[in-house]
Amino acid sequence: MPNDLSNKKWVAPAVVAGNGLLDRRAFLSGGATFAAALTGYSLVKSAAAEPLTDDPWSKVAGNLVTNYGLPSRFEKKVARTLSNPNGEPRTQHARTPHHLLNGTFTPNGLHFVISHSGDPDIDPGKHRLVIHGLVRRPLVFTLDALERYPLVSRMSFVECGGNSSPLFSRDPIQTTVQALHGLASCAEYTGVRLSTLLEETGIDAKAKWLIAEGGDSLALSRSVPVAKALDDAMIVLYQNGERLMPGNGYPMRLLLPGWEGNMNVKWVRRIKLVEQPAMSYYEARTYAPILPDGKALNFYFLQEVKSFITHPSFGLKMNGPGYYEISGIAYSGNGRITKVMVSADGGRSWAHAALHEPVLSKAFTRFRVPWRWDGGPAVLQSRAWDEAGNAQPTRAEIVATRGQSARTPPVTAFISQHYNGPTSWAIEGTGEVKHVYA
Amino acid sequence: MPNDLSNKKWVAPAVVAGNGLLDRRAFLSGGATFAAALTGYSLVKSAAAEPLTDDPWSKVAGNLVTNYGLPSRFEKKVARTLSNPNGEPRTQHARTPHHLLNGTFTPNGLHFVISHSGDPDIDPGKHRLVIHGLVRRPLVFTLDALERYPLVSRMSFVECGGNSSPLFSRDPIQTTVQALHGLASCAEYTGVRLSTLLEETGIDAKAKWLIAEGGDSLALSRSVPVAKALDDAMIVLYQNGERLMPGNGYPMRLLLPGWEGNMNVKWVRRIKLVEQPAMSYYEARTYAPILPDGKALNFYFLQEVKSFITHPSFGLKMNGPGYYEISGIAYSGNGRITKVMVSADGGRSWAHAALHEPVLSKAFTRFRVPWRWDGGPAVLQSRAWDEAGNAQPTRAEIVATRGQSARTPPVTAFISQHYNGPTSWAIEGTGEVKHVYA
Repeated sequence: MPNDLSNKKWVAPAVVAGNGLLDRRAFLSGGATFAAALTGYSLVKSAAAEPLTDDPWSKVAGNLVTNYGLPSRFEKKVARTLSNPNGEPRTQHARTPHHLLNGTFTPNGLHFVISHSGDPDIDPGKHRLVIHGLVRRPLVFTLDALERYPLVSRMSFVECGGNSSPLFSRDPIQTTVQALHGLASCAEYTGVRLSTLLEETGIDAKAKWLIAEGGDSLALSRSVPVAKALDDAMIVLYQNGERLMPGNGYPMRLLLPGWEGNMNVKWVRRIKLVEQPAMSYYEARTYAPILPDGKALNFYFLQEVKSFITHPSFGLKMNGPGYYEISGIAYSGNGRITKVMVSADGGRSWAHAALHEPVLSKAFTRFRVPWRWDGGPAVLQSRAWDEAGNAQPTRAEIVATRGQSARTPPVTAFISQHYNGPTSWAIEGTGEVKHVYA
Repeated sequence: MPNDLSNKKWVAPAVVAGNGLLDRRAFLSGGATFAAALTGYSLVKSAAAEPLTDDPWSKVAGNLVTNYGLPSRFEKKVARTLSNPNGEPRTQHARTPHHLLNGTFTPNGLHFVISHSGDPDIDPGKHRLVIHGLVRRPLVFTLDALERYPLVSRMSFVECGGNSSPLFSRDPIQTTVQALHGLASCAEYTGVRLSTLLEETGIDAKAKWLIAEGGDSLALSRSVPVAKALDDAMIVLYQNGERLMPGNGYPMRLLLPGWEGNMNVKWVRRIKLVEQPAMSYYEARTYAPILPDGKALNFYFLQEVKSFITHPSFGLKMNGPGYYEISGIAYSGNGRITKVMVSADGGRSWAHAALHEPVLSKAFTRFRVPWRWDGGPAVLQSRAWDEAGNAQPTRAEIVATRGQSARTPPVTAFISQHYNGPTSWAIEGTGEVKHVYA
């Protein structure tokens, strides 16, 4: 292994698309071509390193180690934003601050939450999951019983059907990626395959759907095809290694990887096998987009292929011309992400992004592109493809079939759900980042 | 996809090793053979599912959604145990409760911490990383500057060299897997490759080592070969998506994947390139095991291949004969885990464990084996192999070269570090789990 870089000849990475996008392979060379990308743009200046001065915190004993770690007091801004902080009798939303995070998944404290009637304070020793209806034998499962079944773990994103709804607004709303896309998060889930439990109960041949019902006071319920239940559905007990958080369904939730958030019923207490969907309130009204022809789009399960740039983005400021990394998140309810392209000139030219390995099915994939910003105007955009061959649509394509709204934010159902088009960030000469449509 | 399980013929999974260990492929069949494993041992009894009664929490609005989620009040026992809760002027240890977690990594709140002088309260805007010594140009990096470099993400375990030291005790200590192995955890880390920064500074050909120094009041410092720095070392900024926790090095730490925990210098403020190692206090005294021949084993970097069973384990109780899952964690500083074998008869016969995919280099790998316990005595053990061809040694092999101690817990250095032998759990007829040597 070489340990002498003193005479290394730098090879500048190629500019592969307009406005300074660099070849992603600059990352793969072990950094060997990276320094060349900095020529004339070095991120730091040579400085007298010695003598080192001691900072105040290096002169005193530090804080107590606690039995459950929390972020530094300097990170208070890294928090979920709340739509209803006083808990008035309506839905509460808590959004993930993607522009302040990095990596491929979401820590439990910052996973998004939507609770229609607050987070129920469930005693796990008393909670029960009932599976009944069109089964050979109805069964009642305690948490302890579920723990004894074969457990499986998988990464999965969960996304609200209404995530990204501000993008239906006729004019681009000047706000953060947290406000635009903060109702999607990703975690490692561990639990029991629902198919394992359905083998225990048996299923009547007439059963085509199941109704999953939560233990919240509104008893949110959704109908799910039995085929999905036997595919990759899980009864989740753990999230990122520890028990589910109260806002994410403690002590158990249904997980339907890649499907609309509210169908992943939290605090699940009942799964009833039936012949027909229930046409429950949340599926017949709240999560049933009305199309321009007046018909309701019911049972729109899939969260389709999507991506957005988190760095740079609105609320972050560019600190002068030079090297930057463009980075963001891509995911698809259909499976793995196969490709992400990034533009710095509003979609006229595109560069391949590097994808963080391993790329997992129905999970966040972090993408990165090296960029040399010349200080002039630029418009950043990303576009993703999935293994089922789907491409992320343009905003124009979505608006053509779904419409847009003069209201800010949009409120009618047909233009508030399942936006999966691109997000465009305009970089101004001052280094400010604006939200634009391009 | 079949949705009629009513007439399915169950095929019992084969018993593949003594005392009821079942074929791991029972997991891979989509659960199709699982129910057969339960024959005569069902985990739940058929029950009248209706009418469902409403639990008290289903009758009232729930709790407020907060801007940073925390575990349920019913999970207070899922906490790190503290060796020095009042912060007396000595080392503080906080151990991960592996027996109460599941999945493949550790949530940030429960990642282990060892702080020799508490957690410094660092202002990230004022913290600096200096790289100097035998370099072409010394550089001073702010956190903002580091953010602009190409970032990489990877899963990695970190383990204290002293983890598992109670296993050197001559008699098995009756305690949890948290007390025995709680000084190892696993997380996704995002940051800058150290090689990228060393390209910026350049390295003098004479530099063979670097000294990494922390910003804690003891300025913990360790010497690291430059070859490791240019291989997979990172300056980490994010852990599991969010900023490092204060106890884990906020706002930046050195990560040396697979190497002894304390070398992953937390709160890192200086990297100095030098010709010879520094023989610092922590490498010359604290982390220098004395061998039976009286020589010190300095610079024992690698955390070698290891595994332990977390479920069942001491402190958890078996609830009568029947089906259980044996599950645990395996990892190696050499790379990927290739195989884990599990025994239920104290090592006389062995079954292959299923490994949770994807199996990642130098990261925790969760293993699982289906087991039908007949209610009689059993001794559970696991043994792991890594891609470099290393097998986890037996306890007898370790004791033969390293010794053991009559003290509980052991205190002398040579028998307190780098134990990577097996852990054995005896299941008694009562369902109690005891720690034994087998």
